Amino acid sequence: MRNAPTDPLPLAQALIRCPSVTPADAGALGVLEAALRPLGFTCHRMRFGETENLFARRGTEGPHFCYAGHTDVVPPGGQGWTDDPFAATVRDGVLFGRGACDMKGGIAAFLAGLTDYLAANPNPPGSISLLITGDEEGPAKDGTVRVLEWMQERGEIPDMALVGEPTSRARLGDIVKVGRRGSMTAYITLFGTQGHSAYPQRADNPIHRLVRVLHRLTAAPIDQGSEFFEPTTLQVTGFDVGNAANNVIPGEARAMLNIRFNDLHTSASLTEHLHAALRAEESRYEMRIDCSGESFLTSPGSFVDALKRAVERQAGATPALDTGGGTSDARFLARYCPVAELGGVGATMHKADESVPVAELRDLAALYRAVLEECLG
Amino acid sequence: MRNAPTDPLPLAQALIRCPSVTPADAGALGVLEAALRPLGFTCHRMRFGETENLFARRGTEGPHFCYAGHTDVVPPGGQGWTDDPFAATVRDGVLFGRGACDMKGGIAAFLAGLTDYLAANPNPPGSISLLITGDEEGPAKDGTVRVLEWMQERGEIPDMALVGEPTSRARLGDIVKVGRRGSMTAYITLFGTQGHSAYPQRADNPIHRLVRVLHRLTAAPIDQGSEFFEPTTLQVTGFDVGNAANNVIPGEARAMLNIRFNDLHTSASLTEHLHAALRAEESRYEMRIDCSGESFLTSPGSFVDALKRAVERQAGATPALDTGGGTSDARFLARYCPVAELGGVGATMHKADESVPVAELRDLAALYRAVLEECLG
Repeated sequence: MRNAPTDPLPLAQALIRCPSVTPADAGALGVLEAALRPLGFTCHRMRFGETENLFARRGTEGPHFCYAGHTDVVPPGGQGWTDDPFAATVRDGVLFGRGACDMKGGIAAFLAGLTDYLAANPNPPGSISLLITGDEEGPAKDGTVRVLEWMQERGEIPDMALVGEPTSRARLGDIVKVGRRGSMTAYITLFGTQGHSAYPQRADNPIHRLVRVLHRLTAAPIDQGSEFFEPTTLQVTGFDVGNAANNVIPGEARAMLNIRFNDLHTSASLTEHLHAALRAEESRYEMRIDCSGESFLTSPGSFVDALKRAVERQAGATPALDTGGGTSDARFLARYCPVAELGGVGATMHKADESVPVAELRDLAALYRAVLEECLG
Repeated sequence: MRNAPTDPLPLAQALIRCPSVTPADAGALGVLEAALRPLGFTCHRMRFGETENLFARRGTEGPHFCYAGHTDVVPPGGQGWTDDPFAATVRDGVLFGRGACDMKGGIAAFLAGLTDYLAANPNPPGSISLLITGDEEGPAKDGTVRVLEWMQERGEIPDMALVGEPTSRARLGDIVKVGRRGSMTAYITLFGTQGHSAYPQRADNPIHRLVRVLHRLTAAPIDQGSEFFEPTTLQVTGFDVGNAANNVIPGEARAMLNIRFNDLHTSASLTEHLHAALRAEESRYEMRIDCSGESFLTSPGSFVDALKRAVERQAGATPALDTGGGTSDARFLARYCPVAELGGVGATMHKADESVPVAELRDLAALYRAVLEECLG
């Protein structure tokens, strides 16, 4: 007979009350350490640059299951909050606060599910670890990337990793993310020849050329999507000239493009796609590419099957395998081991009055306990 | 026997050294007054709004010949200049500086030709005036328009007006302009729906829509020209969004378009042409139209014939009658009297390293002296 399940609410509130806006830790990782040590975890704190990180592991055998997440949060923003964003107020069964769903609530739910799993399985097969960073919402340079390098040096790369981002769409567990699109930004400057707008034949209007380039790039979709991915999207997010004189044809025009791409492309192949569209104008141009992550896909297999079974047991429905949405630290873990993402409903993430129903937190704790049972036995 | 001709270079340099970017006068009209008073001109300075203007006349009888021009200049722009744009540097026989050809050099040449004409004809028939404004490159609201109203009230409307804009194409005097295209500017703001660039299906990118509108408007010529006019031109002179975040689809995009149109169109018919291209997007938009002048044509007659004779004498070739190029204050003068335009070669006007060969300035001074001889005797 099981005992009453552990309530994730107190730990979620303790974490939210640490105002850990990236890169501040504000005591959040200490709260986690204090919860993990009594459960038998060995904790390693690592500071890279301004970022505090935590790697905690219980056991040394395989299979090695890793839960990955972050305690940093985006700034609360200036307005729109009913309560202090760091007060962790509960009203009408809902927990409010910055990080409630992204993703301190999720971490607290994992800790509660883990506590109950270990109570029922004091000597589980394999080992369990947590990789918690304080740099997910920021530049993501001194967090998961650096901890994984440290883990690899020590031979602690897991056999499977679950990222606890709030990936559910409408109800808990409706989505398991098994990949992510890549993201890249192109900064283009196209050069023409400045002149008087009354004598366009003596000038070379870079706006007309850039309009043609962008028309070429946006007139048709880049692809129709692939088996697990939505179509690649290209959005022109900036177009600026900075010319105030209506009788002057300016000498240059600048555009910024953001591309979210699926597994049919790489940042290199898309960079060449942009160069081809620019070369068609036969104009001088400069382009700088900033790729924040290539696309990746964790092929369905035993890990994804175990997650599906856990969701089916707890939520009574089969989750959809999905690759939509923005980037997360899963893109770094995917270089080392199978990775998937499963967490709460993220409707209020990054918004004012970010919140999570307390009942959802408790359901998520039960789901994570089931995940451990299915993944480790 | 004639004396050595007056050199226009010192006055041209003195004018360029006044940084009279519209609407600043920066002392330019004072330099002119100081040159005109010793020649017997009565000078009237008029300030309308922020604009300084000068009307100077010598004599009261008819026929009344008026030389019209402007001392304001367009901004030098940020880069591309070899010298300080207001230093009036002479290198290898070429005068460099903002306004060198448009049109401080022209004014200096007229003053030099006028000086020599008056030296040879101390009591010329009729009268000579100069209408010089500081508002030609700007909104043109407080310049020639207002001075002409003042002149009409006083009964000082000329019998013929010569605008000294740099209208020559390849060599001095190859063109006499007898009409001008119209000019209008459209300021367009197109509204979309702001959103995250990872979820474009939840946003409505106004840049993509504005690119389509502008592509539609610039893909084909508006017309093929008419008997006295070149084809109508449309130039996009501005496109601005002001979004710095690569993951944000902005909510609106703005463009500025300048149209130079012939006698096949009016500003009203072209405004409807723009509305039609915008309506095709079915987006909310705002458009403001600023028409600085409808197209006009001065029919050939005795004034144009006198100018042709002056050019034939000085340049040895018959000028072509033309209506090309940008707007000038000739459009305002055309409402009152026969007007034509004759000046230097404008290849570098509004560009970096704007310049005029010193020899061309001297030839232009001689041409203007011949113009006075042919028009007044």
